[in-house]
Amino acid sequence: MAENPVRFGIIGCAKIATKVARAINLAPNSLLYAVGSRSIDKAKNFAIVNGLSDAVKLYGSYDQVLDDPCVDIVYLPLPTSLHVHWAVLAARKKKHLLLEKPTALDVTELDRILEACESNGVQFMDGSMWLHHPRTVKMKEMLFDSGLFGQVHLIHSTSTSMGMTEFFENNIRVKADLDALGALGDLGWYCIGATLWSKNYKLPTSVTALPDTIKNSDGVILSCTASLHYDDGDQPTEKSATVIIHCSFLSYTCTDLSISASKGSLHLKDFIIPFQEDSAIFNYTLDAKLVDLHIGWNIVKPEKVVVDCELPQEAYMVQELARIVEGIKKSGCRPDSKWPEISRKTQLVMDAIKQSVDLGCKPVCLTEN
Amino acid sequence: MAENPVRFGIIGCAKIATKVARAINLAPNSLLYAVGSRSIDKAKNFAIVNGLSDAVKLYGSYDQVLDDPCVDIVYLPLPTSLHVHWAVLAARKKKHLLLEKPTALDVTELDRILEACESNGVQFMDGSMWLHHPRTVKMKEMLFDSGLFGQVHLIHSTSTSMGMTEFFENNIRVKADLDALGALGDLGWYCIGATLWSKNYKLPTSVTALPDTIKNSDGVILSCTASLHYDDGDQPTEKSATVIIHCSFLSYTCTDLSISASKGSLHLKDFIIPFQEDSAIFNYTLDAKLVDLHIGWNIVKPEKVVVDCELPQEAYMVQELARIVEGIKKSGCRPDSKWPEISRKTQLVMDAIKQSVDLGCKPVCLTEN
Repeated sequence: MAENPVRFGIIGCAKIATKVARAINLAPNSLLYAVGSRSIDKAKNFAIVNGLSDAVKLYGSYDQVLDDPCVDIVYLPLPTSLHVHWAVLAARKKKHLLLEKPTALDVTELDRILEACESNGVQFMDGSMWLHHPRTVKMKEMLFDSGLFGQVHLIHSTSTSMGMTEFFENNIRVKADLDALGALGDLGWYCIGATLWSKNYKLPTSVTALPDTIKNSDGVILSCTASLHYDDGDQPTEKSATVIIHCSFLSYTCTDLSISASKGSLHLKDFIIPFQEDSAIFNYTLDAKLVDLHIGWNIVKPEKVVVDCELPQEAYMVQELARIVEGIKKSGCRPDSKWPEISRKTQLVMDAIKQSVDLGCKPVCLTEN
Repeated sequence: MAENPVRFGIIGCAKIATKVARAINLAPNSLLYAVGSRSIDKAKNFAIVNGLSDAVKLYGSYDQVLDDPCVDIVYLPLPTSLHVHWAVLAARKKKHLLLEKPTALDVTELDRILEACESNGVQFMDGSMWLHHPRTVKMKEMLFDSGLFGQVHLIHSTSTSMGMTEFFENNIRVKADLDALGALGDLGWYCIGATLWSKNYKLPTSVTALPDTIKNSDGVILSCTASLHYDDGDQPTEKSATVIIHCSFLSYTCTDLSISASKGSLHLKDFIIPFQEDSAIFNYTLDAKLVDLHIGWNIVKPEKVVVDCELPQEAYMVQELARIVEGIKKSGCRPDSKWPEISRKTQLVMDAIKQSVDLGCKPVCLTEN
C-alpha cells in the first residue's frame, strides 16, 4: 500500500458496499477508514462479515462518517432517493464523492449534487466500474484513437437480470420511494453509459422509448427499450447512428454491447462485469467481407483481444478516484471535470428516456447544455 | 447423382444465378438442365464462365425455358419488379418455383404468385438459403424443441453491406423500377425471416420504423431500422418480445443474429452466410449468472456449437426443394405449404415496415390472415 493512502468512508451497508469495500482494500493507494450505518450493530456486522481490519472505524450514523476529518472520500451506496441529501451534505463537509448509480432521480437533483461538489472543490465520480476496466481502455483506443473502425453506425446495448419473486416484493430497485427509476436506473444506466462512451460522449439528438415498457403496480419500470438517434451526417445519404438500449428485470442475465461502424464491428457479452476478474476479452472484425459468389467470408471468425487485469475493475475505479483526490490534496489540482460530465450526460439521456416512456413513446430531443 | 434427378431451369443470368447453378450441380438429387437469358449469347457466356456441362440446354429467352417440358423447377433470380409476371407464367406452365428474395414488391403481388402455384399444383419456395443450413436446424432444435431457452424476449437482427459508388449508380437493388424495396428487400428480408423463425412463425403484433431511414433520390431505401413487437404476455408484468431489425447498404458487412430468452441467449455473427462452407458455429449461454458479490460469472465464456456441413447451404436448399418436387411428381404428394407460408409472412412484415416508413414511423398493426 502507498505510504499515505487516500481514506474512504462508506455510508450505508448495502450489498454493493461489500464489493466496493473489497475494492478499496485491493487498490494500492486507498484505505478503508470508516464504515457508517444507521445503527452501530449493522456497521459491526458489516465489518465481521467482510473481515475488515480492527482499525476500520465503525459508526452508528452516516453523519459521524461525514464529520470524521480523516475521511477523504465518501462512498455512497444508498437508495437513489437519498442521494441528493447525503451527497450534498458530504460535499459540504469537503468529502470527495463516489456515488453509486443511478446518480439521482433526475438531472435537477444531480445538478444540486454537482454544484455542491463544484463549490466545495471536491471530486465527483459515479460507480460505473466497467469504464475503468483495462479492456474498456483498450477498446476505446481501437475505436477512437486509431480510427480503425471508422464512424459508429449502430449500437446495441443490453442489460438484463432476472428478478426472483422476493426481488419484486422487497428489493429497493423496484420501490417507487427508493429507486423510482427501476430497471432503467439500475441496468439502463450501463446501456446509456456504453452508448455515450461509444460515441465519445456526444449526446444523441433524440430519444424514443419503444412501446414495450413494463411497470409494476407502483409505476416503477421493470423492463424497457429505447432507441437513440444521432444525426451525424452532412450528406442526405450519410448514415447517422442508431442505438438500441434494452434493460429488464424480467429476462435472463445478458450484458451485451455490440458496436457496428463503417469499417468494422466490435462486440462483447460481458461489458458490465467481465466473466472473470483476471482477464477479459472482446471480439472484433475489420475489413471482413463476403468472398466472390458470396459462398463465405474472407475471415474464419471474429478476432479476439485478451486483456489481462491485475485488479478487479472496481479496484481500478477506486484507484483512479484516489489518484485524482491525492492530486487535489497534495498538489492543489482542480477536480477532474471528466467524471461529473460523464455522469451528467448519462443522467440527461436517462431523463429523456423516462420522459419518452411517460409521454407514451413520443420522441424527446436533447441539446448539449 | 440420383438416377432421375429433378431438372432445374434458370431464367436470368444474374450474379446470384452462378451461386445457385453451382448448388444445383452439388445437390445429389438435382440437375441443371437449362439456362435461359434475354439473348442466347448471354446464356452461352454464362455456361462458359461457370463451366457448365455441354448437356445444359441454353436458350435465348425465358419463355423457351418455361416451354421446355423437361424442366421441373424454374429458378427465378430476376429483379423483383419482374417476379410477378414470370413467376405466374412459370406456375401456369406447371413449373415448380424457386424465387429469389424479396419475393415481390408487396403481398398483393406475392399472393398472385402463390395463387398461381396453388391452382397449378406446383411447389413454391423462396431463395432464403440460411433456413436450410444444418446449423439453423440445430439452433431451432435447441430454441424450440427442447424448450431449453424458454420464451424469446429480445431479438437483434442486422444485415448490412457497404455499397461502393458503382453500386449506388448502377445496381438493380437501388433502382425504383427494378428493386424498389432497396436494402429492406435485399437485406431486411433476412432480418425479418430470422425474426419469424425465432418466434416460430408467429407474426408480430405491430411494427414501427425508427426515424433513421435513408433513401436515395429515387426514394429507394438505402438504410433503415424497425422495431417489431410481440404482445405475448397474459400477465401485466409478463414480458412480451421486442425485435430490432436493421438493414443498410451504408455500413460495413455485418450479419448478426442475437436472441435473448428467459433462460438463455444465443448469438451468431454470420447467420445469413456462414464464414466458411464446411462448418459453422453458433454461441449460446444457458443458466449463466453473476456469482456472489457480482465480481464475475459462473461461466468463463459462452458455449460454442460447431455444425459440420457436407454441402453449402444453398445446395441443401436445392436438395430440399428437389425432394419435395420428386414427391409431387412420383407419389402425387400435395405441395408443401410450409415454404410459401414462410415467404408470405416475411413479405407481410416487410410490407408493414415499408408502410411505417412511408407513414413517418407510425406503428402498423399486423393480423394473422
